[in-house]
Amino acid sequence: MLQQLFSPSVLHTLDLIGIFVFAISGALLAVRKNFDIFGIAVLAEVTALGGGLFRDLVIGAVPPAAFTDLGYFITPLFAAVLVFFLHPHVERIQAGVNVFDAAGLGLFCVVGTTKAYDYGLGLTASACLGLATAVGGGVLRDVLANEVPSLLRWDRDLYAVPAIVGATLTVLCLRLDVLNAVTSTVAVVTAFVLRLLAMRYHWRAPRAWHRRSTVSEE
Amino acid sequence: MLQQLFSPSVLHTLDLIGIFVFAISGALLAVRKNFDIFGIAVLAEVTALGGGLFRDLVIGAVPPAAFTDLGYFITPLFAAVLVFFLHPHVERIQAGVNVFDAAGLGLFCVVGTTKAYDYGLGLTASACLGLATAVGGGVLRDVLANEVPSLLRWDRDLYAVPAIVGATLTVLCLRLDVLNAVTSTVAVVTAFVLRLLAMRYHWRAPRAWHRRSTVSEE
Amino acid sequence: MLQQLFSPSVLHTLDLIGIFVFAISGALLAVRKNFDIFGIAVLAEVTALGGGLFRDLVIGAVPPAAFTDLGYFITPLFAAVLVFFLHPHVERIQAGVNVFDAAGLGLFCVVGTTKAYDYGLGLTASACLGLATAVGGGVLRDVLANEVPSLLRWDRDLYAVPAIVGATLTVLCLRLDVLNAVTSTVAVVTAFVLRLLAMRYHWRAPRAWHRRSTVSEE
Repeated sequence: MLQQLFSPSVLHTLDLIGIFVFAISGALLAVRKNFDIFGIAVLAEVTALGGGLFRDLVIGAVPPAAFTDLGYFITPLFAAVLVFFLHPHVERIQAGVNVFDAAGLGLFCVVGTTKAYDYGLGLTASACLGLATAVGGGVLRDVLANEVPSLLRWDRDLYAVPAIVGATLTVLCLRLDVLNAVTSTVAVVTAFVLRLLAMRYHWRAPRAWHRRSTVSEE
Repeated sequence: MLQQLFSPSVLHTLDLIGIFVFAISGALLAVRKNFDIFGIAVLAEVTALGGGLFRDLVIGAVPPAAFTDLGYFITPLFAAVLVFFLHPHVERIQAGVNVFDAAGLGLFCVVGTTKAYDYGLGLTASACLGLATAVGGGVLRDVLANEVPSLLRWDRDLYAVPAIVGATLTVLCLRLDVLNAVTSTVAVVTAFVLRLLAMRYHWRAPRAWHRRSTVSEE
Repeated sequence: MLQQLFSPSVLHTLDLIGIFVFAISGALLAVRKNFDIFGIAVLAEVTALGGGLFRDLVIGAVPPAAFTDLGYFITPLFAAVLVFFLHPHVERIQAGVNVFDAAGLGLFCVVGTTKAYDYGLGLTASACLGLATAVGGGVLRDVLANEVPSLLRWDRDLYAVPAIVGATLTVLCLRLDVLNAVTSTVAVVTAFVLRLLAMRYHWRAPRAWHRRSTVSEE
């Protein structure tokens, strides 16, 4: 459906940019974990393609896009090589990487939601899969690196909420039959800006009720 | 097939109860790991739906039930909210939660086995998928929380064995063509009671031969 | 396709040998992690069948071979029982186990690549899935055991590279339409020998540029 809203080449280019920045985040974690060049490449691929792969398996779109489009496979390799040689420089521009990562988050939650809906899933399920597309790669990255997924940790700035908002806006537009190039761009940009604001002002989600008081009472 | 044995509404209600108690166990672990409200919700969803999702992907039932039935999605969210506000109270009734978890274990191993058999898998494969349905969510929960799956640890009371027994009874009934409301209830209750006994008497499975003697010789 | 190159019984026997040695490696890790007999069996099954299961889900071959061939299920159980009773002896012949594991690696990367190509995937995607078939089980094993996958660690001898070479040789043969019993054997043996050499001479892949110098400057 989004394929009809945007020219295919525009959408494909945006997709590749999202994949690239997600791959950078995977490759940087691999360097920090002291992995070798193959570990860096694997973590870049998994981070970039994991969310979409999960979505495609669930909606029955096999073989998944990750295995049919050569660009999807090569882009993370390129990111891995870049980080391999230039990681001190890439880390220095971490803020810039984070901005692109936020853009990828916004893009993928909208694209993922739309693709799931195209395959006949309900509105709620489509929004869930949009969220999974956006955050799934990062969760797989952290699981493979043997870390608690940063998505789940309370001490990280909001990451899921912007994607949930973007996916929800998308299904609202689908429900009201007003999804077009403008409204889907609005959904992407809303998620993107929310994530930027969450990073800027360190927005966090609450932990369980009584949790802190319980701890302080000890 | 089980759909024909029980009225659909009875089976659906049992399913939702099983999902609810599994979600509670996921949400409680998330609180213990200090996750925020979104981490609690994610872990509740994964624990409740992960086993069935794996089974559905393997048997080719896409989109999986977890994404087609709104009740399956909302029930874990409800459990997450409950734990978020009331977790000290929920932990106080841990024994009660464990009883319901045992009921979910018994129910899911029988339902999972039957569904896999309905999709044309062999008896052994169906029993394996019944086991995977029952324990898969808990394994995913522990992997996401970056812990060794309690299913695999020797210092936990038997969890897999009751599910294996329930799944085996189910395939025996399928083999002898005597699976009906009574026999499937017997399978569920057998698994349920075995798990209760395992918790009551701290039944554990043996570790590798010579393991302890080797350690004590050191 | 490979089914036509070799007699089915030869290929099936090789498959079972590969599954057996992978299961041994999973069971040994389970013993080291102090898992009970069920944990040993689960880790043996996951290590032996995980890579092929992932490949089959991606190419849409459901139900996966792991659930349709009883021998695939029973072989890891046999390995688990063997390790359960004899693990000190099995560990003593670790070098022998490693040789068989290298054979499994070579075999699975070629078989996995060929099967993916048979299901209509492109050459690059087929090679990736061949690699995933060969190394996927080991990655799942390490994730379930809550360890950093040894595939990704820089301080382990090359494991991915032999599989990449084997898969690449296979797709080259497919591309040139010269895949037959001889050429596929050459691909298997090349991967096998490369892995043996990597273990013998402790070949390792480089970590990120500047990594060591940065560390030593600290």
